[in-house]
Amino acid sequence: MSDKIPYSDFAKLDLRVGEIKSVEAHPNADKLYVMKVDLGEGEDRTIVAGLRKYYSVEELVGKKAIFVANLEPAVLRGVESNGMILAAVSEDHSEVKILKIDGEMESGTRIS
Amino acid sequence: MSDKIPYSDFAKLDLRVGEIKSVEAHPNADKLYVMKVDLGEGEDRTIVAGLRKYYSVEELVGKKAIFVANLEPAVLRGVESNGMILAAVSEDHSEVKILKIDGEMESGTRIS
Repeated sequence: MSDKIPYSDFAKLDLRVGEIKSVEAHPNADKLYVMKVDLGEGEDRTIVAGLRKYYSVEELVGKKAIFVANLEPAVLRGVESNGMILAAVSEDHSEVKILKIDGEMESGTRIS
Repeated sequence: MSDKIPYSDFAKLDLRVGEIKSVEAHPNADKLYVMKVDLGEGEDRTIVAGLRKYYSVEELVGKKAIFVANLEPAVLRGVESNGMILAAVSEDHSEVKILKIDGEMESGTRIS
């Protein structure tokens, strides 16, 4: 069981709807994709995601998913990622499924 | 734009798949539901959610959604809530849509 946290800890997170505009294989890591994501800011973000084993490029492009939009940038095998996609991960990591919305919402819509 | 946060701030959250087992109108608040949610712990949690304007009881019962499982308990109009359901909320609050999984996952599955 994780430690209990106050609501203010949750509120630090900028969770948002984003649309995956493009997906490419990471040049130096065979488990990673490099995605361009519209988070409603006018300019797409580069976000690296470990989804290559679980989703094809075609299954991701054009989809809306949920992202942490305010993570500090992280360099993953030479590519800077500016956010993180959320996914449900089975205990043995055999299954990974991204989160989505129950319906349609604009890119940039906040999750709370 | 929100402040940037380290990954460790995200990792404090216990985000999980949960199945909504029952939904009742809150006795003292006409915007709130009182839900029983299976978060994979053997015992259902009571979680209060402001979804009454946006979802019928029938639309919620039996659905899997995403929850913050380790929030400190909060008493909402006399009912203790032990967690929070995640939803996309439009800027003017006219639309609220819960998050779901792109496929099927067991209750209790962690989001990361």
